[in-house]
Amino acid sequence: MGAASASQLPSGLPEQNLPARFLAARAASERLATGLSDADATVQSMPDASPAKWHLAHTSWFFETLILEPHAPDFQPFDPRFGYLFNSYYETLGPRHDRPRRGMLTRPTLAEVLDYRRHVTAAVLALVESRPSREMAALVELGCQHEQQHQELLLTDILHLFASNPLEPACFSAPSPVATGEPPEPGFIDMPGGIVEIGHDGPGFAFDCEGPRHRRLLEPYRIANWPVTNRAWIAFIADGGYAEPRWWLSEGWAARQETGWEAPLYWELRDGIWTTMSLHGRRPVMPEAPVCHISFYEADAYARWAGLRLPTEFEWECAFADAPVRGNFADSRLFAPHGALAGAAASPTKAYGDVWEWTASAFSPYPRFRPAAGAVGEYNGKFMSGQYVLRGGSCATPAGHVRPGYRNFFPPHARWQFSGLRLAADC
Amino acid sequence: MGAASASQLPSGLPEQNLPARFLAARAASERLATGLSDADATVQSMPDASPAKWHLAHTSWFFETLILEPHAPDFQPFDPRFGYLFNSYYETLGPRHDRPRRGMLTRPTLAEVLDYRRHVTAAVLALVESRPSREMAALVELGCQHEQQHQELLLTDILHLFASNPLEPACFSAPSPVATGEPPEPGFIDMPGGIVEIGHDGPGFAFDCEGPRHRRLLEPYRIANWPVTNRAWIAFIADGGYAEPRWWLSEGWAARQETGWEAPLYWELRDGIWTTMSLHGRRPVMPEAPVCHISFYEADAYARWAGLRLPTEFEWECAFADAPVRGNFADSRLFAPHGALAGAAASPTKAYGDVWEWTASAFSPYPRFRPAAGAVGEYNGKFMSGQYVLRGGSCATPAGHVRPGYRNFFPPHARWQFSGLRLAADC
Amino acid sequence: MGAASASQLPSGLPEQNLPARFLAARAASERLATGLSDADATVQSMPDASPAKWHLAHTSWFFETLILEPHAPDFQPFDPRFGYLFNSYYETLGPRHDRPRRGMLTRPTLAEVLDYRRHVTAAVLALVESRPSREMAALVELGCQHEQQHQELLLTDILHLFASNPLEPACFSAPSPVATGEPPEPGFIDMPGGIVEIGHDGPGFAFDCEGPRHRRLLEPYRIANWPVTNRAWIAFIADGGYAEPRWWLSEGWAARQETGWEAPLYWELRDGIWTTMSLHGRRPVMPEAPVCHISFYEADAYARWAGLRLPTEFEWECAFADAPVRGNFADSRLFAPHGALAGAAASPTKAYGDVWEWTASAFSPYPRFRPAAGAVGEYNGKFMSGQYVLRGGSCATPAGHVRPGYRNFFPPHARWQFSGLRLAADC
Amino acid sequence: MGAASASQLPSGLPEQNLPARFLAARAASERLATGLSDADATVQSMPDASPAKWHLAHTSWFFETLILEPHAPDFQPFDPRFGYLFNSYYETLGPRHDRPRRGMLTRPTLAEVLDYRRHVTAAVLALVESRPSREMAALVELGCQHEQQHQELLLTDILHLFASNPLEPACFSAPSPVATGEPPEPGFIDMPGGIVEIGHDGPGFAFDCEGPRHRRLLEPYRIANWPVTNRAWIAFIADGGYAEPRWWLSEGWAARQETGWEAPLYWELRDGIWTTMSLHGRRPVMPEAPVCHISFYEADAYARWAGLRLPTEFEWECAFADAPVRGNFADSRLFAPHGALAGAAASPTKAYGDVWEWTASAFSPYPRFRPAAGAVGEYNGKFMSGQYVLRGGSCATPAGHVRPGYRNFFPPHARWQFSGLRLAADC
Repeated sequence: MGAASASQLPSGLPEQNLPARFLAARAASERLATGLSDADATVQSMPDASPAKWHLAHTSWFFETLILEPHAPDFQPFDPRFGYLFNSYYETLGPRHDRPRRGMLTRPTLAEVLDYRRHVTAAVLALVESRPSREMAALVELGCQHEQQHQELLLTDILHLFASNPLEPACFSAPSPVATGEPPEPGFIDMPGGIVEIGHDGPGFAFDCEGPRHRRLLEPYRIANWPVTNRAWIAFIADGGYAEPRWWLSEGWAARQETGWEAPLYWELRDGIWTTMSLHGRRPVMPEAPVCHISFYEADAYARWAGLRLPTEFEWECAFADAPVRGNFADSRLFAPHGALAGAAASPTKAYGDVWEWTASAFSPYPRFRPAAGAVGEYNGKFMSGQYVLRGGSCATPAGHVRPGYRNFFPPHARWQFSGLRLAADC
Repeated sequence: MGAASASQLPSGLPEQNLPARFLAARAASERLATGLSDADATVQSMPDASPAKWHLAHTSWFFETLILEPHAPDFQPFDPRFGYLFNSYYETLGPRHDRPRRGMLTRPTLAEVLDYRRHVTAAVLALVESRPSREMAALVELGCQHEQQHQELLLTDILHLFASNPLEPACFSAPSPVATGEPPEPGFIDMPGGIVEIGHDGPGFAFDCEGPRHRRLLEPYRIANWPVTNRAWIAFIADGGYAEPRWWLSEGWAARQETGWEAPLYWELRDGIWTTMSLHGRRPVMPEAPVCHISFYEADAYARWAGLRLPTEFEWECAFADAPVRGNFADSRLFAPHGALAGAAASPTKAYGDVWEWTASAFSPYPRFRPAAGAVGEYNGKFMSGQYVLRGGSCATPAGHVRPGYRNFFPPHARWQFSGLRLAADC
Repeated sequence: MGAASASQLPSGLPEQNLPARFLAARAASERLATGLSDADATVQSMPDASPAKWHLAHTSWFFETLILEPHAPDFQPFDPRFGYLFNSYYETLGPRHDRPRRGMLTRPTLAEVLDYRRHVTAAVLALVESRPSREMAALVELGCQHEQQHQELLLTDILHLFASNPLEPACFSAPSPVATGEPPEPGFIDMPGGIVEIGHDGPGFAFDCEGPRHRRLLEPYRIANWPVTNRAWIAFIADGGYAEPRWWLSEGWAARQETGWEAPLYWELRDGIWTTMSLHGRRPVMPEAPVCHISFYEADAYARWAGLRLPTEFEWECAFADAPVRGNFADSRLFAPHGALAGAAASPTKAYGDVWEWTASAFSPYPRFRPAAGAVGEYNGKFMSGQYVLRGGSCATPAGHVRPGYRNFFPPHARWQFSGLRLAADC
Repeated sequence: MGAASASQLPSGLPEQNLPARFLAARAASERLATGLSDADATVQSMPDASPAKWHLAHTSWFFETLILEPHAPDFQPFDPRFGYLFNSYYETLGPRHDRPRRGMLTRPTLAEVLDYRRHVTAAVLALVESRPSREMAALVELGCQHEQQHQELLLTDILHLFASNPLEPACFSAPSPVATGEPPEPGFIDMPGGIVEIGHDGPGFAFDCEGPRHRRLLEPYRIANWPVTNRAWIAFIADGGYAEPRWWLSEGWAARQETGWEAPLYWELRDGIWTTMSLHGRRPVMPEAPVCHISFYEADAYARWAGLRLPTEFEWECAFADAPVRGNFADSRLFAPHGALAGAAASPTKAYGDVWEWTASAFSPYPRFRPAAGAVGEYNGKFMSGQYVLRGGSCATPAGHVRPGYRNFFPPHARWQFSGLRLAADC
């Protein structure tokens, strides 16, 4: 999850809108947390997940440490001990509380963390208003993008926690009925390949790992016009897809054997019906919705079973770079992948929203990539091993956060994100 | 921790006082939890510990399952799913939530658990008042004793949780100043040995493992008139006691090497002063107080270093069977071991209260011991391997709960209980 | 496994026979190894086991370190690096090769280790003949007893290794047919209890943990006249003994769940017949032979299933102190428990030989026990936690090694020794 | 490591030389094992390594299973149980002995395995001579290539085993003095980039993962004319390279923290001199030799410290595709990386031989890659996650085995291969 240095400042960014942009990003986090009890916000359900309270505090720490401390001369930290508690992984910013022990922090309470947020929000706002500058705007924008990333993680982590509770509580009340649309006929989009331009280049914000923009040579290929659905996945299960090693990568099969995977995360067969845990509690699986909560290994096995393959991240980007970035994002407040939708969440290919799509590409630096100097340089570059790229955003991604060149990444065994897949083929 | 069958009903137990006794036991648990937030009451700091909320619910489940379900025909469970959530280890009472996952239960909330408690308390009270019987009295008494055991565990587990937080919060506000007394001259009590009677036998309540009363042959021995103090323990540390394998059992040395023990649990040297975490936050170690939060292995190593040994549980019981059961218990609300005290907490030998004392005795059945039939038979008997007996109660034990023949037990590496030691010698 | 200090020298030990005694003990080890390849003698099948080559070398190191180095002024070690390689656990004798890495030592070869043995044997023999003394005799006797203990371990460890090989090789060729006898009618021996004397006291050798001799008070009890047989164990299996938690200690049930125990170690059902791996390869289980390769937890569960209990080690010793120490020992070269035998291996109760019998007693020091000073003090005392006492010797114990007061000990989950059980009851 | 299907048969392969080629490959394995004892050949020093005996048997099993069983109608297996013992990872070829338990197989002995080899060699030879065909030639060639891969692994695994022994034995006697040459002036080779052809395409053998040949677009780059030397690595160590997280990938730093890496595997500082374990025993590190036994993480950290980067596998191949495949291979019998050499092992860039060079490329399928049908399809394709590509061969690779397009691969933490690095830079 990449960092903007000052030089990355989007040239056309309207600085005068920065306060509103900043306040909206901060408020969105708090809105997500409204249904949570102090305990909900505190518990850590696994080392890979973080407590909601931690996300709320860490995003504030990020503003405090990267903006207020170096730039606001009279800034008083809310609590000087929070630097230790809420640093995530920045080695250059000093020692930090052990990641797997984040769930021990019953204090500060959720209410205190919300006070901390108000303190930081007010201080950043004052700074931005008193000292507008392109550098400040770039840093605040980075902080907002960072905040949005943690909004998504807050949702995935709360879902994991609630799914760990035999009571299977709902985080949100049931969504309003949603306008549905017509899905396309299943098919492929033919792409000619050739030398294409990949990576961010333009006036808007992007994380460092999305650039530099550069050329790639693609062979002709085809890419599916819709993600793989739950209905198709159920056919894979029924055909013994989870029991047949020949579809699986060796590491994937080992993971499957060790963990006993027999369906996507959260799926359970109840009275003959596949159900899944969601932020609205346990629900029947919707056949037309994109399959979700699968690992890279499962995505790859499915593709092999289907006689096809995953697209590379370059094929994905080339296919959808010009598509409108519309779809089922967090702002629709559905918080789950859906079938074809109408209205603001409509998308003819579902390239954006619903589920992040695993690609065949290991997360690697683009040619001439250089991390920024200092702490922001730790944002993405040091994670460029052992991870695969996902593209397109999900139903838990804030609208406006994702871009055609956006590179999300997770280890191949991760399943608790809103992750699915789309198929590709050689021509 | 032992179960009374109906036949164990204390003959002289005043049944008419049972309601008051019951309500007092229930209220004491709730009083301990008053300073806790919902999050404090939810988090599990290690697999051996349980959340406070779990203790509050489990003790209610115990009354519900062993008394209300079989005896109250119209009883409606507060929530039928709680049986699965709050069973501790009773194989005969059906499946249960995994112990290391108790901390995932952010729901029910603390407030809901307190509602659950009220529901159960009212139902038990109605049953007791409407259908007094000796069998009922025995079961309610067992439930109250069980409740008291969990009051102590609630305190030890909260201390462990708060000590896991770098903020080191206090659970209770600082105690009132306490009247101090004169400690005895350090020395030993000479005991003649011979054939002695061991184990419970009398009108009061006891857990099954405290009997049957039987004869033991003891050689003449000497037992210290005071537990080992922090001052003495600091001398052990200074003399390299933690660095010298010859003082240690082989398993103890392995544990010490693996964990890096260099002092009792919670101790830290800050600015040259030994401090310890307590339920009032971090405090300097009191030199005259009994050393606390040590494992059996450390107690055993200390005794060997001192050229002495631990007493057997029989030697301990024989020495203190006739001493008054007075001392620094939880009702003094000091919640920490202290030096010599005056008033209600005064004790010339500190045999009772302050710290549980590790003995040299592995926890084994007494001759002719038979566990009770049914679920209560799982109370103690099945734990009779891999544990050592501790005697005398601690500053976290409710006053009135402990008896001369009371057998507490923990694995030899456990350190989070209020556990210390007393020395003994052969004559 | 206990150490004799010089003061423990058996008063009546005929010093003039020491050379023959010593040479016989050394030769017996080498005889056991004759069927082993260099590789067989090198591999370590689990951390609890040691390679045969290691046993052969370690027993030599013991003589070298405790006798030759301090007492033979001109002694040249065979290889000065062997002290590091072949120290077992003596902290006072310097650093040592990690126990779980003993199987890495492909060099020295088996042939070199046998050379090492010859070197040490010759040097000890020269020393003993040139400087006979009571102290020397005591040390050599200790070394011989130590050597015999490792002879048994060599056999149990080789069996474990060979059982880890899907080819299931035999270590020894099939034994000659053996004279069989009549087993007794199943029954119990009534014992009056009372104050009895326990522990070693007499002219012969004993390990330190077998004393001091002291008094115990026993209640009247009954002890079975024969160990539990395979036939009886098969009934326990058939009755679901391994599937029913109520028979099991809590730790035992956890071990059973984790490991999937469903029968004794090495047992496999093949074509409807229970078979077991033995030092002669895989064989059908003999119904009348004592059950073998069970853990303490299994023994304890069996006894509870049978409505009985294990005897304490004191009850065992009191019952069989006056029985002749005859039975199926390693010198019969059957290397497996058998049913009733005739001739030298006949025993009306099978108290000695065939299988070590788990007792209900945790391994603890006897009253007034003091380990010897120096390295030999590490022999037994430091293992006095986490272990249970076994009595009586096995088919892998050298004849003459075991005594009525002999205390063997292993952790409660250990199954790879020749371990069985005998039942007891209260009167 | 990739499999040739019959259709991959090199068109120009001289079938009449196949018997000699086959016999030479088989004999080379046996020659490597001549210095090993039965025990040396049996022990497994870690789960990633295999015993030498296992390599010798598994390569025979490969011929037996893929050639003799399907094609030689009268073939009698040497031992029908060996199929279970010596299958490596072919799920389609039935169950197999657990990889981490390969070291338990003290039987069959080394001598029996050599008999097994002779049996298989003779049967393959007879088949090849009686039924020459292109398909047979392709399969035998695949078996020979497979055999050569295991020759290298046999060496790396024996080195790991011998390094686990405190005696640090030598596998081979010291090599003859070697003719040395002049290294080039340190520098870079400028490469223009552009659209280049990558992958195997031609008459000779290649594994499936080396193709299909396809086009890549490379930006202009520079690549070092020599691998990084020990002298340079010592400067990295001296500069605190192992102590500074900013040079490291996040996973790499975690691995470094967990394992305590402070130098390449096998390095130890003795009397102020860096030494390394080798197949000739422990030796001082040669300053001018390429650094060896480093992980991908270390290689990557070094490159970042040096302000440079690793080349991609495409950059590497493009730079050295036309260089002669000469260098320090196993046939020189030096079995260690060296500085500049003269004679047959001379190489102006050391692109081939000495050390495998980690590249920046995750091991992924080339466009249009399809694994072969059947068991040989498991050869490479299923390992295409979690691994990085290494190029160029090493001092343990048989001469003639490696090609410009050869793709070796290992997980990023692996260090026991002969692995080093070469630097690259953007232009």
